[in-house]
Amino acid sequence: MAGHPTPEHIMQVGLGFWASKTLLSAIEMEVFTELARHPEDFASLRERLGLHERSARDFLDALVALGFLEREDGVYRNTQATDLFLDRRKPSYVGGILEMANHRLYPFWGGLTEGLRTGKLQNEARAGDLPFFEAIYADPARLKEFLAAMTGLSHGANRRIAECFPWEGRSSFVDVGTAQGDLAVQVALAHPHVRGTGFDLPEVGPVFEDYVDQNGLSGRLTFHPGDFFADELPRADVVMMGHILHDWNLDEKRRLIAAAHRALPPGGALVVYESIIDDDRRQNAFGLLMSLNMLIETPGGFDYTAADCMGWMRDAGFTETRAEHLVGPDSMVVGIR
Amino acid sequence: MAGHPTPEHIMQVGLGFWASKTLLSAIEMEVFTELARHPEDFASLRERLGLHERSARDFLDALVALGFLEREDGVYRNTQATDLFLDRRKPSYVGGILEMANHRLYPFWGGLTEGLRTGKLQNEARAGDLPFFEAIYADPARLKEFLAAMTGLSHGANRRIAECFPWEGRSSFVDVGTAQGDLAVQVALAHPHVRGTGFDLPEVGPVFEDYVDQNGLSGRLTFHPGDFFADELPRADVVMMGHILHDWNLDEKRRLIAAAHRALPPGGALVVYESIIDDDRRQNAFGLLMSLNMLIETPGGFDYTAADCMGWMRDAGFTETRAEHLVGPDSMVVGIR
Repeated sequence: MAGHPTPEHIMQVGLGFWASKTLLSAIEMEVFTELARHPEDFASLRERLGLHERSARDFLDALVALGFLEREDGVYRNTQATDLFLDRRKPSYVGGILEMANHRLYPFWGGLTEGLRTGKLQNEARAGDLPFFEAIYADPARLKEFLAAMTGLSHGANRRIAECFPWEGRSSFVDVGTAQGDLAVQVALAHPHVRGTGFDLPEVGPVFEDYVDQNGLSGRLTFHPGDFFADELPRADVVMMGHILHDWNLDEKRRLIAAAHRALPPGGALVVYESIIDDDRRQNAFGLLMSLNMLIETPGGFDYTAADCMGWMRDAGFTETRAEHLVGPDSMVVGIR
Repeated sequence: MAGHPTPEHIMQVGLGFWASKTLLSAIEMEVFTELARHPEDFASLRERLGLHERSARDFLDALVALGFLEREDGVYRNTQATDLFLDRRKPSYVGGILEMANHRLYPFWGGLTEGLRTGKLQNEARAGDLPFFEAIYADPARLKEFLAAMTGLSHGANRRIAECFPWEGRSSFVDVGTAQGDLAVQVALAHPHVRGTGFDLPEVGPVFEDYVDQNGLSGRLTFHPGDFFADELPRADVVMMGHILHDWNLDEKRRLIAAAHRALPPGGALVVYESIIDDDRRQNAFGLLMSLNMLIETPGGFDYTAADCMGWMRDAGFTETRAEHLVGPDSMVVGIR
């Protein structure tokens, strides 16, 4: 039977939600935040987490087998990665996005078949409840948590853009949909000659200003409140949009690219980045699945290839375009006016 | 930054339910059954599947990127594995278990945190509806489909047991919880000197007898109806239990092992197999997650290590015990009376 196909990969992915939900429950129950205080043996960890004895050991050992915990002589501890990224008290915490995945996306993805058949989103907005972004923006504490989670998710790509984009000769930028402002902060930290603006809805202002202040950059980074469909973007040498374009339909994407074009001088650059799909649409599974997540979450959003994005940029009047891989599933597309 | 921890594995697993649900929806919408008829281009495939145009291409290309479809010159086709295992019209179809995962387990696993806190199952039985096994056993068509799905899931391990267990000198077996009877069939096909009995609830009889007849083994395999907690097992040289013990609590497991012991002659063998957890409980993630699935699905079931099982066997009077890996996550434990 060697070399014959087996159903193992099918079963692994088909039942892959088991591993996924196990990690999400661990984050919800703050397993990693608890163990970041100190390693613990089974009995005390179980008690502190409030786990029923029936399945506590299977749960913790599954986290060991999945590579999220270590266990030695019966004592559980975080791995280097889970200690850094899943301890809620560290600024490097990325669990916010996964808390949201646990509470919202996991059940909403249960409607995927319906979404594929109808083309309609499957989240709160489907039942007429307050859509997610509005709910988040209405609650300052939740907004701050969400924006910080976005930072955790994009921090690696932000640092990479600060490193690899040619900032020489460019003295200003605007980061559109800036959230907490980590992209702005990373660029400003790496390039002392650059001043930047974070552009987002007014509610985001205090969160942006806090974060910028913590990083000692209040003199060089300012917040500009606005709605990028209603208001003109501030003028700058570089316009950046990270994890923004995919939320919107094709017409809205083109409007955002045109707004960037108007904000740039000749020679100015638009930098778009997110989990951009490979041009042949057969490698970046995460990008393609993210696009299905836009089906679940938005009325018309979708992810796209670098070739798609470069086409829209050229249609909007950009003269040169190029794409470059950043980290993990993320790439950037650059258009020069 | 090289060598520093990244959040990539955390994100991949935490959002792993995206890939999982995408495959489950593809099975539900019969993508692979449709493409097993013939490869198709995007437009006709979309129409035949009833996919809305918004996300159809992302969905199909995500299946390409995940390794479940191939695409050449715009024409989609099954891979060798999905053609064999996910075409509903082939006897090798394993999708039944994943259809069940899609309809039942995916939403029920949404209750994992609650299950971990309370130790209580999270399926239909939680709300007082008819528990799954009873619902399945009450509907002959659904029962047949479920039992066939179990065959697809265990077929590889069944063939391996037929191959690697020493059947010389043993002339009879009983397969306890036989379902469709694939384990019985594989052993009988490989060992013409052996006669066997399939033991299961009476409703299973016709499905077992059909399958045995299709395999030309009606002369050597017979069905014995019964409830393994209420009735004695038929006597045989070998008693087999595949994917049975994990459904039950420790006391019930011990009762089943004791029943096997009573059914065996001195020197007779009990063969227990399923996704048995490695003794150190840090390798077989699937076995540990299957144990959490028993939390979701049963009042007291759990998976266990070979060492656990050998201990229960010795307590029941078995004199020799050993464990052996079969295929994928499955191993067997053998006890000699």
